[in-house]
Amino acid sequence: MNSTGSWRGFASDNYASVHPEVMEAIARANAGHDVAYGDDAVTARLADAVKDHFGPEAEAFPVFNGTGANVVALQAMTRRWEAVVCAASAHVNVDEGGAPEHGAGLKLWTVPTSDGKLTPDLIDTQAWGFGDVHRAQPGAVTITQSTELGTLYTVEEIVAITSHARSHGMHTHVDGARLSNAAASLGTGFKTFTTDAGVDAVSFGGTKNGLMLGEAVIVLNPDAAPGVDYLRKSSMQLASKMRFVSAQLLALLSDGLWLRNASHANDMAALLETRVRKVPGVTIVRPRQANAVFAILPTAVTERLQQMFRFYTWDQVTGEVRWMCSWDTTVDDVERFSAAIAQEMAAG
Amino acid sequence: MNSTGSWRGFASDNYASVHPEVMEAIARANAGHDVAYGDDAVTARLADAVKDHFGPEAEAFPVFNGTGANVVALQAMTRRWEAVVCAASAHVNVDEGGAPEHGAGLKLWTVPTSDGKLTPDLIDTQAWGFGDVHRAQPGAVTITQSTELGTLYTVEEIVAITSHARSHGMHTHVDGARLSNAAASLGTGFKTFTTDAGVDAVSFGGTKNGLMLGEAVIVLNPDAAPGVDYLRKSSMQLASKMRFVSAQLLALLSDGLWLRNASHANDMAALLETRVRKVPGVTIVRPRQANAVFAILPTAVTERLQQMFRFYTWDQVTGEVRWMCSWDTTVDDVERFSAAIAQEMAAG
Amino acid sequence: MNSTGSWRGFASDNYASVHPEVMEAIARANAGHDVAYGDDAVTARLADAVKDHFGPEAEAFPVFNGTGANVVALQAMTRRWEAVVCAASAHVNVDEGGAPEHGAGLKLWTVPTSDGKLTPDLIDTQAWGFGDVHRAQPGAVTITQSTELGTLYTVEEIVAITSHARSHGMHTHVDGARLSNAAASLGTGFKTFTTDAGVDAVSFGGTKNGLMLGEAVIVLNPDAAPGVDYLRKSSMQLASKMRFVSAQLLALLSDGLWLRNASHANDMAALLETRVRKVPGVTIVRPRQANAVFAILPTAVTERLQQMFRFYTWDQVTGEVRWMCSWDTTVDDVERFSAAIAQEMAAG
Amino acid sequence: MNSTGSWRGFASDNYASVHPEVMEAIARANAGHDVAYGDDAVTARLADAVKDHFGPEAEAFPVFNGTGANVVALQAMTRRWEAVVCAASAHVNVDEGGAPEHGAGLKLWTVPTSDGKLTPDLIDTQAWGFGDVHRAQPGAVTITQSTELGTLYTVEEIVAITSHARSHGMHTHVDGARLSNAAASLGTGFKTFTTDAGVDAVSFGGTKNGLMLGEAVIVLNPDAAPGVDYLRKSSMQLASKMRFVSAQLLALLSDGLWLRNASHANDMAALLETRVRKVPGVTIVRPRQANAVFAILPTAVTERLQQMFRFYTWDQVTGEVRWMCSWDTTVDDVERFSAAIAQEMAAG
Repeated sequence: MNSTGSWRGFASDNYASVHPEVMEAIARANAGHDVAYGDDAVTARLADAVKDHFGPEAEAFPVFNGTGANVVALQAMTRRWEAVVCAASAHVNVDEGGAPEHGAGLKLWTVPTSDGKLTPDLIDTQAWGFGDVHRAQPGAVTITQSTELGTLYTVEEIVAITSHARSHGMHTHVDGARLSNAAASLGTGFKTFTTDAGVDAVSFGGTKNGLMLGEAVIVLNPDAAPGVDYLRKSSMQLASKMRFVSAQLLALLSDGLWLRNASHANDMAALLETRVRKVPGVTIVRPRQANAVFAILPTAVTERLQQMFRFYTWDQVTGEVRWMCSWDTTVDDVERFSAAIAQEMAAG
Repeated sequence: MNSTGSWRGFASDNYASVHPEVMEAIARANAGHDVAYGDDAVTARLADAVKDHFGPEAEAFPVFNGTGANVVALQAMTRRWEAVVCAASAHVNVDEGGAPEHGAGLKLWTVPTSDGKLTPDLIDTQAWGFGDVHRAQPGAVTITQSTELGTLYTVEEIVAITSHARSHGMHTHVDGARLSNAAASLGTGFKTFTTDAGVDAVSFGGTKNGLMLGEAVIVLNPDAAPGVDYLRKSSMQLASKMRFVSAQLLALLSDGLWLRNASHANDMAALLETRVRKVPGVTIVRPRQANAVFAILPTAVTERLQQMFRFYTWDQVTGEVRWMCSWDTTVDDVERFSAAIAQEMAAG
Repeated sequence: MNSTGSWRGFASDNYASVHPEVMEAIARANAGHDVAYGDDAVTARLADAVKDHFGPEAEAFPVFNGTGANVVALQAMTRRWEAVVCAASAHVNVDEGGAPEHGAGLKLWTVPTSDGKLTPDLIDTQAWGFGDVHRAQPGAVTITQSTELGTLYTVEEIVAITSHARSHGMHTHVDGARLSNAAASLGTGFKTFTTDAGVDAVSFGGTKNGLMLGEAVIVLNPDAAPGVDYLRKSSMQLASKMRFVSAQLLALLSDGLWLRNASHANDMAALLETRVRKVPGVTIVRPRQANAVFAILPTAVTERLQQMFRFYTWDQVTGEVRWMCSWDTTVDDVERFSAAIAQEMAAG
Repeated sequence: MNSTGSWRGFASDNYASVHPEVMEAIARANAGHDVAYGDDAVTARLADAVKDHFGPEAEAFPVFNGTGANVVALQAMTRRWEAVVCAASAHVNVDEGGAPEHGAGLKLWTVPTSDGKLTPDLIDTQAWGFGDVHRAQPGAVTITQSTELGTLYTVEEIVAITSHARSHGMHTHVDGARLSNAAASLGTGFKTFTTDAGVDAVSFGGTKNGLMLGEAVIVLNPDAAPGVDYLRKSSMQLASKMRFVSAQLLALLSDGLWLRNASHANDMAALLETRVRKVPGVTIVRPRQANAVFAILPTAVTERLQQMFRFYTWDQVTGEVRWMCSWDTTVDDVERFSAAIAQEMAAG
């Protein structure tokens, strides 16, 4: 790490700190006794805010983390014998320690993709064999918005997926750990590309967008995802002092904080991309559509840069790295990092 | 509820607020970027603090909630075909929505008790059939300290259990959602009745003792509980911005906050017991050994009191109620509540 | 064992051999190629036979063993977050190696009973907390007919249970490993005390009544138990050459074989009871209502008898033993055993 | 189907009947009472026979079906947090209704292959991230011999895989539903390419090679697969009248029946391949190394042939079909089928 002892860098948006407005909301919630497990006034206000953002049918179930949100939602959306179609690169497949299988017995039908995005055709490489008892029945499809590869589904692409899924009798879930970054990039509210696009349930992310801790399962189509309240408990995702999780989520949905934070993170990634595109020898390998930049540069350069700034190598074979910007990434962070990249590339 | 619109009451120690020192610790942890998932400096300091309190072999794994702590610890302590012996009244049996069975495939061998406490003889009503494939093999015993019924194990009672369990080749886990209340009541540190008493792993509670959110699996005997790091992730209990959970636990273990909070809660329960013992017609039905008072009073009185103060009826049949004190229960709370009890009892 | 090297005894009805008519049915089914996984003619005929016995709505799903039948049926009858109420003595609780929890995440709410039989009142000691997310939701009740303690539910008792369960929104399952013995004892067909009594699904036993291997999940109320075909596969209970399992079950349901075998086993138990009641010092401790006799006799006598005849000690503490008769128990077996009991009791 | 009403065809080796020697062995086992659950003399003899074939350390655990064998073995070979690397085409992934995930919480790390065979390099596309809690830890690799695509691993290829797995600290399992066909094709005994090749446990198939019903988990390295006896029960794979399963497996391993049956099936597939290679327009698309032939022919021809003989279309897109020969496929079956293929191809 650099000489200042700081951990500033581009490793992940969950290396970021907590936004001051979120800290204030937590402090405000800390006023004497309140009912546990969600029967409190803050959680009630959150319920309203979620309806404002996702539509009057939307129901919010705050949980602890993204893995928890995904596993709870996908259980609710499938019957005991059903499986989930996802991109092979999906967080739920590669980064959750096997939680869907281990904690919920969920089989994932994985689909290789070039850009982390499913399509109806790609879904159909696994969504078949309906009625065949030998094949774990495809019951739901989960897509990530924005994806683990920094790409974005358009509204039309999501509509195509949900209507295709519905034609199979399958439900559609969105892993929205970075839903705010997606909305900011699309220039719409959440509802446009979730509720209105036929999505049945969403894992709504907060931690990566300025919260201390907190996500929510948001059910948009209650018939498609029953029992979330019970499954949240049996999946160890029910907070006793829930008001403090709800307060954070409420702060995020208030006064446009979600948008301010996400837009800033996206902008910083855009700035970084602009700067890096000018550095000879560095290749931007994926469309930069949210708050991540994926690039290929020489391994020796990567290793020197990682002495100064935290970031992850995404693919050891190709040398692809991931640079992730967050709500608290500064222009100065980007400029210093870009300068370092340029300098180290020049050094060869 | 009472006329002030407050929720003050005696329903649960998780209706309480967050202690100011904990809030300060969270604020201090919120200093720019830090590494996610526990590779941060605060979590490292927590590891040291846990060793100070539980001995040099102790390893701390912060998690989100008590259900999570229990399920992670019990999985680590059992092989795939093993079961867990517990009191029928154990939280893990009656209040976790089936999480041990649902999320981890754990069978519980439950034992009826009069006071929530297991003994070697009681354990042996279920710990038998070793080597018989038809019987889910007893692999661990879990006890709660202090218990769900407000009672306390002595050090000697715990030693008797752990040595008995060991003689069966079984491990011993302590559900310590209220471990601090127990330590305060016993007048010892944690180590005396856990590590030194032969306990293999503990679910260490924080939320009920002044935290916003945070518990820890503390492994005392690493050979008895391997893989907690992996199981924490696959059980959806790994916080990304872990520094904020660790900071709370660290605050609790610093400057005796755990003891101050727990002693206060215990003292308030003692005061309440003293006051109520003077009220004719109210029966204190269990030894008051930590921060809970269990009493039987007429249902009509209970119902009137519940209009003024929150608390739970524990047993609909007998009319037994539970009054739980917390770190932020005040003498005034107790006096007002005691007075109301006396008044309503007098009213008949 | 006795000097002849035989294993004849009273240990279990699954120590018995295979009935000749079953062997013949297997041989007949072994005629060249046939479609696997149940799309064969024998399985189709079994489906009809099951409808004849259980009513036109009944659907039969052959499986391998009783544990498998129970676990498949109970999964179908519960949602992911629901639990099953059963007697503490139920096979599903004590003799299945934890399969319901391990293989299906099912929590069992166990109820102590004196005679292995549930009642509406006993069910209600666990069937409560509906709507409370902290309590694994009671979704089904399972009773065993005849019970593990050799007792029998009357038709009226079953009706009382199913209507009570229905009033809670719960389904009712019957573990019928010895359903034929029950029917023979009740003097009715199966339908009277299952379909007509409001039972939703049955585990129909064959192995203990003269088959080589084979049970069936019989769904009586399809709305209450969807997905059995998928769950049978995902629970490892789908036979590829199913015709050979179906042929056995079909033989059992043909020409009254089920009744002949079960009646004979019951009669042998009745004869044994009659003989033993005359032996001073032996106490018959439970009503003998099917094919099992439970008795208490001195441990020293038990141990000498177990050198000559196989049988199990049921309770080490009280000295209670279980003597189980089967379709192939002979009058001579009973007389020789009764004589040995009398002789050893006389020897003291 | 053809006019004779027969189901003869090439759909699957589990459409076949039971070999007469197996029927005789079952009949012999049906001699009066015997101890249940495997403590019988036939199962003891099977244990010896398995040691003769697989080496003195080998332990046999009869189970009901191949899915059961795989799920039991893989659970024994992995810790709660570990996952299994397999070919995407593996039966355990595509044809077991999600049983590994559903019944045991096992995550499968799947690898696309061209021929159904893994290699050390292919394994390493998923066997990485050791020590990273976010990645379900690769704990075992499973290969199928002969594969689902009719191909065969050489002894050297298996040695390469097991030694590579061992270098990762992973165990190796062989799904041997057609292990006999593989051995017959390799011209060796089982031990050469399992025990001696470093394999830790095998699912040994019987049903597809002439049994009525019966497979076995065979543990070759007991340290690598503890607890199979318990897991067999908790996974619903323990037969009560086990002697009848063991007798079948024993018959298969006696007097070379396994080899006679498997060689015959392989020979019939070879004959079919020879005949079909002469038919213009039909392409044999995979090496014919055991008892399956995969071919591509016009869909219209396939559909006409399927009116006469049962067989499966393997890939709707390419028109690839699978023709499987079994122990009871006759030369006449092959000649009639080959003639029909030639005739229908000529008809266009």
